[in-house]
Parts: sequence; C-alpha cells; structure tokens
Amino acid sequence: MTFQPLQNDSFLRACMRQATPHTPVWLMRQAGRYLPEYVATRAKAGSFMGLATNVDYATEVTLQPLERYPLDAAILFSDILTVPDAMGLGLSFAQGEGPRFASPVRTEAAVAQLAVPDMHKLQYVFDAVHSIRKALNGRVPLIGFSGSPWTLACYMVEGAGSDDYRLVKTMLYSRPDLMHRMLAINADSVAAYLNAQIDAGAQAVMIFDSWGGVLADAAFQEFSLAYTARVLAQLKRTGVDGAVVPRLVFTKGGGLWLGQMAALDCEVLGLDWTVNLGGARALVGGNVGGPGKALQGNIDPNVLFAPPAQIDTEVQRVLNSFGQPHTDNQRSGPTHIFNLGHGISQYTPPEHVAALVEAVHRHSKAMRAT
Amino acid sequence: MTFQPLQNDSFLRACMRQATPHTPVWLMRQAGRYLPEYVATRAKAGSFMGLATNVDYATEVTLQPLERYPLDAAILFSDILTVPDAMGLGLSFAQGEGPRFASPVRTEAAVAQLAVPDMHKLQYVFDAVHSIRKALNGRVPLIGFSGSPWTLACYMVEGAGSDDYRLVKTMLYSRPDLMHRMLAINADSVAAYLNAQIDAGAQAVMIFDSWGGVLADAAFQEFSLAYTARVLAQLKRTGVDGAVVPRLVFTKGGGLWLGQMAALDCEVLGLDWTVNLGGARALVGGNVGGPGKALQGNIDPNVLFAPPAQIDTEVQRVLNSFGQPHTDNQRSGPTHIFNLGHGISQYTPPEHVAALVEAVHRHSKAMRAT
Repeated sequence: MTFQPLQNDSFLRACMRQATPHTPVWLMRQAGRYLPEYVATRAKAGSFMGLATNVDYATEVTLQPLERYPLDAAILFSDILTVPDAMGLGLSFAQGEGPRFASPVRTEAAVAQLAVPDMHKLQYVFDAVHSIRKALNGRVPLIGFSGSPWTLACYMVEGAGSDDYRLVKTMLYSRPDLMHRMLAINADSVAAYLNAQIDAGAQAVMIFDSWGGVLADAAFQEFSLAYTARVLAQLKRTGVDGAVVPRLVFTKGGGLWLGQMAALDCEVLGLDWTVNLGGARALVGGNVGGPGKALQGNIDPNVLFAPPAQIDTEVQRVLNSFGQPHTDNQRSGPTHIFNLGHGISQYTPPEHVAALVEAVHRHSKAMRAT
Repeated sequence: MTFQPLQNDSFLRACMRQATPHTPVWLMRQAGRYLPEYVATRAKAGSFMGLATNVDYATEVTLQPLERYPLDAAILFSDILTVPDAMGLGLSFAQGEGPRFASPVRTEAAVAQLAVPDMHKLQYVFDAVHSIRKALNGRVPLIGFSGSPWTLACYMVEGAGSDDYRLVKTMLYSRPDLMHRMLAINADSVAAYLNAQIDAGAQAVMIFDSWGGVLADAAFQEFSLAYTARVLAQLKRTGVDGAVVPRLVFTKGGGLWLGQMAALDCEVLGLDWTVNLGGARALVGGNVGGPGKALQGNIDPNVLFAPPAQIDTEVQRVLNSFGQPHTDNQRSGPTHIFNLGHGISQYTPPEHVAALVEAVHRHSKAMRAT
C-alpha cells in the first residue's frame, strides 16, 4: 500500500512532543449532525449504521469538516460500538435515540459465550480507513479509534446508554470475576481491531474511555486503566508506511487519575474541560529533552454557543492555561493538541466552529512569535 | 424554643473534627423511594410537592429510615428547588420524571425580574424543620440543606434536568453579567433560607452543589465556588440552642478542586466516589491539633446492589482508604463521616442498607480498638 506523503504533519509532530509552528486542532465528533451536509448524507444512507458500514458514505462524511475548516487531523467516521456488534450483540440506533444492543450481556452464561470476534466482520471499518486515507491524499493524518474495554462493557451490560450504570456496576461489585473475563476479551478485541485499522492506513489511534470517569477510585484502576494498558501493550508501533503510530488515550472524567495515567505506554493523554491544563502539564507534560505525555483538549464544547468574540477569549484562555509551547526543533518537549473536552454538540452553529479553529491557529502562532 | 438534648452526637462531633467511638453514617436521600413505607406515604400525599409541603408527611418520611437503621443523623425531607419555586418559577414534578419549572429564566428581562423571595413562602420548610426536630426528640441531629447557587441556576435556566447544560452554559459564556446577577440573588436567597432553617431547629446545614462538576476549570471557581463562599459568609454560626451549627459543602464531581475548596469557611467537605479518601485527607484533612476539614463520603451507591458480603468488603475498603481516625479526646483532628458518594438509588434493596450501616459501625469501632 502506498499513500501520498503528508502535507500537514503538525498533529503527528505534536503527538510525538515535537515542536510545531502552531497548535494543531481537531474536534471530537467533527463529522456529525451539526453539519447540514452530514445530515444530507445520513438521509441518503437511511440510518446511522447504513452510513457507518458504507465505505463511500463513511469517506464522504469524514472529509466534510475538512472542506469547511483548516483542521489538522481527520478521524475515521464510525461508532465506538462496532466491536461488540461484531461479537453478535446486535447493535441498532433507533430514530432520535442512542445505541441499543438486542442481546445485552448480563449473566454468567452470556459472559461465557463472549469471544474476540472474527475481524472479517469489521472489514467495512478497515475498508473505510483505507478509502479515507486515499481520499485525504496526504492533506492531514487519519486517526483510527475504538472504545475502551470498560466503555464497551458498560454498553454491553446496560444494553444502551445509562445515567447510573446500575447493571454494569452490579456485575462489577457482585461478580468481579465475570467483569474481568469480559474486560480481558474486550481488550484483546480492541487491540486486534486497532491493529487492523493501522494495517489499513490509520496514522494514529485513539482509545475513548468515555465512561471511565463513572468508576470509583480503585475500581477505575482495576477495571478500566488496567485493560486500557492491556490494549496498548498489544498495539503495533508503526503503520503501513513505516511511520510511528502515536497512541492517544482519553478518559472522560479521569482528571483525578492523571498521575496514574502517566504510566500508560501511550504518547498522548486527552483531557476534559474540568482539568487545569497548566496543572496537567506540570504533572505529566515533562520538560524539553525529557520524557512526558503530549496533552490534548480541553475547551468546553458549550463555548461554541457563545458569539465569536467570546469563543476567541475562551480559546486564548485554554491556550494560555497550557502556556508557552516548546519551540526547540532538535528535541522533544511539552506539546498541546487543541480539542474539545468532549464531542461537539449537534446544535453547534457551524460558523462558530470556523471561529474556533481560526482563533486556535492565530493565537498559537502569535504565542510562538513572542 | 427548647428541644430535647442529643443522645447521639457522633455526627456533630465528627463535623467538628472531634473524636467519636465509631464513624458516624447517614445516607444522602436516605428518606426515599427505595423504602416501601416512603412510597406508601407519598401515595397518601398524592404528589412529591404534596409530600414536601405537608409538615406531618415530611416529618413522617424523614424519620422512616431511622426506624429501620441506626443512622447517626437525619436530614430534612425537602427538595433542592424550593427556593426558585418561591421566586415564582413554578416547580412541578410530573409522574416518573424529574423536576420542571413552568417559567425558566433565559432572557435578560427574566433575570432582571429575579429577587430574593419572601421567606414566608418557604414557611412550610421551616415548619417541617421544627416538627422533625421535635419528633426526633434528641435521637440524632437534624441536617438542613439547600442547593448551591450554581446548581439552582442550572435548573432555573434549563427549566428541568439536562445532560449537556447547553442553555445555562450558553448564558454563562455569552452573557456572564446575567449569570453573575442570577448567582448573587441565588446566593443571598440560599443564605436567608438556610438561616431560617437554623432558626427553626436545624443543627447542621449542607449545601448541595450537585452540578458544580459540570463546569470547566476556571468557570467552576468563578461561577460556583465563589457563590458558595458568598452563602457561607452570611450563615449563622449557632443554632436555637446555642450550639455551633456545622456547615457541609458537597460538590459532585469536584474532586479536582478539593485544594481550592479547602479555603471555604465550612467544617465539612463531601466527596463523591471518584476521590481517593486517603489522598483527600492528606490534602485537606489536617493533623491532630491543627486546622483542617472533616470529610464526608464516599462509597459508590451501586455497591448496595451487591450481596452483603461484598458490601462489607467495600465498606472496609472505604474506611481503610480514609485510614485510622484520630482518637484524641482533648484535641481536634482528622475525622470521617461515612456516606454515599451520591443519593441512594430508588432500586436499592432496603436490607442491603442495613448491612452497610452495620458494617460501618462494626468495622470503624474495630479500627479504633487496634
């Protein structure tokens, strides 16, 4: 497989803690319902899974935000629940509702039946990765992703979204042996899934631990962090073109455990908006010439509902909170990848996203010039 | 007003960082739907507000959990949204849904009309406090409470519960001047409300900042913490019997800001289950003979869905996480009040609550004996 060389490698450089001329920016869920062109493609596809499983549609919507905004990375259009779907749980998206599994995993017998799925069932995802990478034509790097083992387990047990995680936590506290078995299978499945995305052309991979933050202290370390580490230990380190593939981990609500997450074998830690970026940099960002994690985040997505002038102010606040990025081209050092602290809201005015991206590039260039 | 002397002052002593023979325990929302006797009283009352506004019913349900379990404190049965209701926003609880306001506050004109409500509109609350205190007959102390200024503002703007806080954050980021005006009025209202509860017989008061944790770093300090401090600055320090009235503050999801919350002029900080109790004690709990905060919390309410043996193990884990409580009867020092990290679930088996309370008392006595 040969792909075009990268024209904008600022995202990958920042992942590797290398200096960049501006702070790279992309947005979680940047291909989504806030864009009228996405809504139009989804209408053609008929359903969310119709969109995600069709290579042409998945490619089309992945590139849509790049046509509007000078974003520094693209992310595969897919869903975090494709892996349990391939395990046979029967994923569907009812109109106006979240995901739902036809066969949730709530008994010892159901857990006993779980196994790492045949990756051929997920070929549509790898085909989409390959297609998107080709369509990007070297414009920006492509990020592949998966839900974390714990986050997948939440949906697999609850069968849908939850506001109290009662069923999955009942299993966790009552039958930790079953939970560990499920998480081990999930971790090995996620590792195989991300490796196949890397083989198909993904240039970075991100693990979304969207529900790690609902766990109690001690339970987080045992049931989420340990299995994220198990995934990371199995990941390929280089992609199809021989380049290093950075690994990003984002635990929503995980700010309290940042010190422990620093021990993960990954390059980038994502942060939500509750975390003080300067404090996080001091804790895990490292120094020029020394080890550390690149940091990604963390503006509140609700800032995008304010007028552009206030968006500009809040962008500056986040950039200043991280502080002066390092500019040493010979050595690695603290770097920041600008992002939201959570996925973009479907109600976001698209022109406000333009204001945000522009403000990140303008202010971060100016910071480096001083 | 004269009330019977306290027979069990372990909760109040722990609030003041004084040694106690066991770790006192009470549960947020301990009078609630998981108890069949509560469901029966509510059925008689016809509606949630029918229950909360009737002094006899409110007294009855407040005492129900004490009849079942040897809890070390009672908490007024009421709702956190009584104050905005008294402001004229029209609170209602639809069957099977959360609270709803008929007139949410979303415009400059609506904010301009807000004012500290006439406390006579809340007389039913103060009457309930007086009635409950009398009915307790000195058994355990009575805690009064209110929502925090920010948490009230969330409901006042959203008009109901929310999963993204889009409307209230849109106002916060777009028109911080309006948000500050609303929060100042809320703070002065909450202070007057809690002072009237103290005058009616409350022996401790707790501020529930249930939604502080949804704010971004910096926004939390400016829009939540500052107004909690404004409430605290106005509170009476002694109750009708001349005893000191401890003040408790609980910010759900506020663990990252614990160091800053240590500066609040209150006696107790509540913690949710994501916080490491030992770490919190080291940060803000102080030493014997020195200043510090008492800590309250923080077991995951979902532990109550596990069998009693696992509940026992998890109770021990939480007690051990706090560590050995101080036993110096001459001086103040680090203390722990056992609680859930959030309100008890309506699906909780009542007999599991008995196991939890018993485990807290038994293990915490044993810890002091070693």
